Amino acid sequence: MLNLRTETPACWLKQVSANLEELLIDHAHCEKKAAGVAMNLLFAYVDRVELVRAMSAIVQEELSHFHLVLDLLERRGIRFRKIPPSRYGERLRALCNKQEPLRAVDRLLTAALIEARSCERFGLLRDHLADVELAAFFGDLFESEARHHSTYVRLAKLFVPEERVEARLAELAVEEGRIIESGENLSRMHS
Amino acid sequence: MLNLRTETPACWLKQVSANLEELLIDHAHCEKKAAGVAMNLLFAYVDRVELVRAMSAIVQEELSHFHLVLDLLERRGIRFRKIPPSRYGERLRALCNKQEPLRAVDRLLTAALIEARSCERFGLLRDHLADVELAAFFGDLFESEARHHSTYVRLAKLFVPEERVEARLAELAVEEGRIIESGENLSRMHS
Repeated sequence: MLNLRTETPACWLKQVSANLEELLIDHAHCEKKAAGVAMNLLFAYVDRVELVRAMSAIVQEELSHFHLVLDLLERRGIRFRKIPPSRYGERLRALCNKQEPLRAVDRLLTAALIEARSCERFGLLRDHLADVELAAFFGDLFESEARHHSTYVRLAKLFVPEERVEARLAELAVEEGRIIESGENLSRMHS
Repeated sequence: MLNLRTETPACWLKQVSANLEELLIDHAHCEKKAAGVAMNLLFAYVDRVELVRAMSAIVQEELSHFHLVLDLLERRGIRFRKIPPSRYGERLRALCNKQEPLRAVDRLLTAALIEARSCERFGLLRDHLADVELAAFFGDLFESEARHHSTYVRLAKLFVPEERVEARLAELAVEEGRIIESGENLSRMHS
């Protein structure tokens, strides 16, 4: 699915269902971080008008989602606060090349993989959560993650030829799968 | 006007009218930077829900304006590109306290002053530019800068009592006025 090499382990759903409050707070932080990643890419590659326009649209969409999660937290009386993140993002970032143009490609492709993993997990939450409101909430966000995934992969092709993007995406997907399989004993969107 | 202590010197309009292309490119960068400043504040003070919601709305609005300026550049066949910025932003940032909560107050109040100065200058461009399309364009953006100014001043009061915010705003406005009076021989929104 969306270039992912591994499925989410079965234990993840149990793990997050046991602490939905933390999952929701983490989800809010993830939407915020997704907006931040797109903003950083916009600043880093401001000469590429196609990228700039796409990133600016993604920042706006992620911030709308962030607001939706904040509203949901408020309705449920959950205080939005700092919580320790999973190490997923940091471990993906560590895989990125330091030199351009490969750095741009890697930043875009790891962003694409994060969107793909969120998409897969929103699908799992939509299909399996007993809480009907939450299941529908994640179902509504499912499609935009898939769309963002495609946007990030397409933009990587502005920097190196298509075959190199595909090859690098396959490599990074293997690494992403390893990180997901190693898991983390926390209720987080990417634990 | 909006807590500003000094009016823009008369030479600024002449200076920018002589190179409207650079002014427009700089304006695009300013909208992008304004979105970046709001995003940084959102990340820095994520525990303050009122601030987080207001910053997130401002990021979205500044990015919409950024798109409007990119569209305008495209219609006029002007390539959006990096150009050296004026030193205004850097000189204002240098005035900010390093220690919280005064750092938060100073970041918010310098952002408020930048919005106020943009508002004053959009008014000048609206009233004096010979280019009717551009004059109307800046006229349309005038109101949102005034609104953002008030939002930033209001948010500073989340961190320290109102009297301290007003006193510090008066101090920073004097410094902002000095920076503006010293001027820079460039066609920039804040030269």
